[in-house]
Amino acid sequence: MRAVPLLDSGAFDPPAGAPVRDLRRVPIHPDHWYPLAWSSEVRRGKAVGVHFAGSPIVLARTASGTLFALEDRCAHRQVPLHAGVVTGESLRCGYHGWTYDCTGRCVDVPYLGRERLPNGVRAYPCQEVHGLIFVFPGDIELAQERELPTLPSVADKAYKTRRFGREVKCHYSFMHENLMDMNHQFLHRRQMGQMRARSLARRRGDDWMEVDYTFVREGRQPVGEALVFGASKTDGDRDNKDVMTVRTGYPYQTLQIRSDDGTLVMDLWIVYVPLDAAQRTNRTFGLLSIRRPGVPFALDLAWPLLVWFTERIFREDRWIVEREQEAHDRQGADWNHEVFPVINELRDLLRNCGGRTVIPIREVGDTA
Amino acid sequence: MRAVPLLDSGAFDPPAGAPVRDLRRVPIHPDHWYPLAWSSEVRRGKAVGVHFAGSPIVLARTASGTLFALEDRCAHRQVPLHAGVVTGESLRCGYHGWTYDCTGRCVDVPYLGRERLPNGVRAYPCQEVHGLIFVFPGDIELAQERELPTLPSVADKAYKTRRFGREVKCHYSFMHENLMDMNHQFLHRRQMGQMRARSLARRRGDDWMEVDYTFVREGRQPVGEALVFGASKTDGDRDNKDVMTVRTGYPYQTLQIRSDDGTLVMDLWIVYVPLDAAQRTNRTFGLLSIRRPGVPFALDLAWPLLVWFTERIFREDRWIVEREQEAHDRQGADWNHEVFPVINELRDLLRNCGGRTVIPIREVGDTA
Amino acid sequence: MRAVPLLDSGAFDPPAGAPVRDLRRVPIHPDHWYPLAWSSEVRRGKAVGVHFAGSPIVLARTASGTLFALEDRCAHRQVPLHAGVVTGESLRCGYHGWTYDCTGRCVDVPYLGRERLPNGVRAYPCQEVHGLIFVFPGDIELAQERELPTLPSVADKAYKTRRFGREVKCHYSFMHENLMDMNHQFLHRRQMGQMRARSLARRRGDDWMEVDYTFVREGRQPVGEALVFGASKTDGDRDNKDVMTVRTGYPYQTLQIRSDDGTLVMDLWIVYVPLDAAQRTNRTFGLLSIRRPGVPFALDLAWPLLVWFTERIFREDRWIVEREQEAHDRQGADWNHEVFPVINELRDLLRNCGGRTVIPIREVGDTA
Repeated sequence: MRAVPLLDSGAFDPPAGAPVRDLRRVPIHPDHWYPLAWSSEVRRGKAVGVHFAGSPIVLARTASGTLFALEDRCAHRQVPLHAGVVTGESLRCGYHGWTYDCTGRCVDVPYLGRERLPNGVRAYPCQEVHGLIFVFPGDIELAQERELPTLPSVADKAYKTRRFGREVKCHYSFMHENLMDMNHQFLHRRQMGQMRARSLARRRGDDWMEVDYTFVREGRQPVGEALVFGASKTDGDRDNKDVMTVRTGYPYQTLQIRSDDGTLVMDLWIVYVPLDAAQRTNRTFGLLSIRRPGVPFALDLAWPLLVWFTERIFREDRWIVEREQEAHDRQGADWNHEVFPVINELRDLLRNCGGRTVIPIREVGDTA
Repeated sequence: MRAVPLLDSGAFDPPAGAPVRDLRRVPIHPDHWYPLAWSSEVRRGKAVGVHFAGSPIVLARTASGTLFALEDRCAHRQVPLHAGVVTGESLRCGYHGWTYDCTGRCVDVPYLGRERLPNGVRAYPCQEVHGLIFVFPGDIELAQERELPTLPSVADKAYKTRRFGREVKCHYSFMHENLMDMNHQFLHRRQMGQMRARSLARRRGDDWMEVDYTFVREGRQPVGEALVFGASKTDGDRDNKDVMTVRTGYPYQTLQIRSDDGTLVMDLWIVYVPLDAAQRTNRTFGLLSIRRPGVPFALDLAWPLLVWFTERIFREDRWIVEREQEAHDRQGADWNHEVFPVINELRDLLRNCGGRTVIPIREVGDTA
Repeated sequence: MRAVPLLDSGAFDPPAGAPVRDLRRVPIHPDHWYPLAWSSEVRRGKAVGVHFAGSPIVLARTASGTLFALEDRCAHRQVPLHAGVVTGESLRCGYHGWTYDCTGRCVDVPYLGRERLPNGVRAYPCQEVHGLIFVFPGDIELAQERELPTLPSVADKAYKTRRFGREVKCHYSFMHENLMDMNHQFLHRRQMGQMRARSLARRRGDDWMEVDYTFVREGRQPVGEALVFGASKTDGDRDNKDVMTVRTGYPYQTLQIRSDDGTLVMDLWIVYVPLDAAQRTNRTFGLLSIRRPGVPFALDLAWPLLVWFTERIFREDRWIVEREQEAHDRQGADWNHEVFPVINELRDLLRNCGGRTVIPIREVGDTA
């Protein structure tokens, strides 16, 4: 870990002559655990089809509760296995009844002798924690050594956690940059009023970086925000002493707010899982934990307001990152002119940690 | 004709080194008669636009009842002639009034002298039988020698015929394979219960092949099926003696069921006409003839149930073949792993009888 | 100017060996003034996003009424500026608050010192006349010398003007040809009855051409047309003495009708502005001026009928030109077989006056 001075724009420029990869064409690295569904979406005895970066995957939960993840195609005629039937501890294709166990092995073809069974399909390592179903889409040898995220606030009764998410039509990198760049408060001016972020320090390692912010209010605080996050102490005391830390620990992201005394009052964990092969769409999974105040049930009462408030913020963020993606699609290259060193460093990180291939894109000028 | 043993998987593998054409990129052969509309769709004095494999064709019926088929474009500005007006025995373009007779010759341009008339458009051989309008889209020299299908059951009063069809979003070959592979009863388990098909024998020639099946019930017979096809004699008598023969006589397909005594009790004729140039969509035209039982009107009374039953079966088949096409589009090649020799033989037949060109497809990875 | 004899088809054939550019792939020439919105669409304090041939442009009107046009992208993260906020005399991006003045210069980045301000975005010359906002998308050096269209009838109280327009899904050239070829009265037979156009003379220069027509009625006059344009004097007097002149003065088009005594009774000015990069879509802006008759308010009373009548004509024209575009998309080339010399001359003019590049199009056979 090392501290990096702020506003050193240019520090992460590539060496002269080295071409920089267009970040929007860098695929996410598959050698990590990615949530592909909420636990509640896959009931006992059911199979559900999901996607990771263009690969169709079926999540199946047997009657006994075993969960497994396979390629979502029958080895026979390639139709999706999620349209099949969970039978006992296996999954049966809905077309001709070919049957697969939790390792992807084909264990029955109704009209073929057992001695002539064909090869099966790929199985993915699959684990369930915090109400999320995680799958390891990459090199199966690495699944063991790569850790699942630990989310202490989610398990801690001192916090109440909201699960949220949605499909967003953009490359995952726009999401990381959106959350880490707190200079975009102007986008949320209706909910937040006029806030100015001040970045204090940033730190980084090989596959992570984080930045601390404080905020100065420049106008009046909207009622909604005051109700959710508490009123500023006095109008005169315009400097909020809370510190917000935004961190990308590839491929996940967290945003934590600590009060004066170091208490963690808000703890967000979020990830953006590419759905299509071009990785122009992601499904966002977020866990937002809020520390319960002293008054019992106060947070529960305020919860609907918090949901409304965060949904509005999230909706504005979704809207703007989708416009960023549209611009990139039209321009056919990365025209971004970033002046904030934090974001240039983040882009560097995402480029370095991403997959080694290049996402092919359609050429500009297509009539489509 | 020759009999071929079953379960000789591999018999139709190509010789080593010979590349096998991807069947889903084999265009249908145009040198056959294809139905492009039901007779009832083209009324007197009207013109209707249809498609064959990307070629727009206009079917026009004059006031006197003459039916003809032309390229569906005005030679002038290429707008569809089906938006024009049938006038007397000719078809007039709706834009500038250029007029074509039933041979496609341009017989009038309102603002041009008759001596300066331009060339017209292509006419297609066109015949109407069994309530279907057949067009010959291929080499016009061959239209005479190629025969229209004969459908004796449709004309026979001992049978009642249902006409059905729909647009299905897949290559025609998936339809042929779906109907011929009776091992897919599992797909229709809700309507059919658990049936096991047993293939008895198959025969083939240069442009046709057929296979006989009998069926063994493995569970209880659903009420719907019993009402339509008659109850199984006894629960003990689990072997049904009816024989089903499925035949592909390129490019058509038939399915016939004969009872113990050789009576033809069900006679289906069906064809899958490609609509778009990529042949990823077909319009299915089917004629299903059921032999009337001894009791008068019994079949008419049961007809709504038969309609409901066959529509459900057809809906399930449509759904699954469209999933097959989607998988092929995503995989960009034929990953099918067929173990049933009947289907491998059928694929071989469709490849050999199809057009000689290769359908170009978009590359995988397009952002579209 | 020179007079050209009619019916000299072939006069504009290219010299042997010279390839003819496909007119539908000729981009419109950017060095002209194009209306991109009606004045009423851009209110004070608002910003509106429009397009010219694939380039997004933002039109902003400040509180003081100043109107300006910029590239519709923030120099920072490329999101559309039209989603931002007009503040004072400048436009502020809605994401991070970067601010641009009417010349496109970046005048503020809230979290950056003024000495480190980045480059801004391109500004377009912009003028407002006749209720239209004109932008000059081409070489800025030429904006001064190129004149805005003068529309005397619109300013003249002896006329009443209707503003109309709509997005039409075709290349602009189809629109020019549609209006100039009066032989397409057959398309409007329901509104116009049977009319035959007679072209009298045509004239042309380097960047313009015009043709005069008279009309002969061949059937009865529909009531709608009689109410709008006046009844034909007598049934016996079948030759209308009015003269219609259709002119393409690149890139605009006019249609004027003069009565026996030379009075201008109808004056249409119209332009077709490409929206997308492939120029397969245009937004039509039309100003239709009708001379008020002697009776006061008569025209105002008839106005709703005129609106209805012209909308129906326009709807039919839109429908047919979109079919022309569809045919071109499918055929992948220009198969038009034009026999009317006026239109061949017009095509020649549009080819010569258009941009020098070639619009790339997707290839035929794509699965899309």
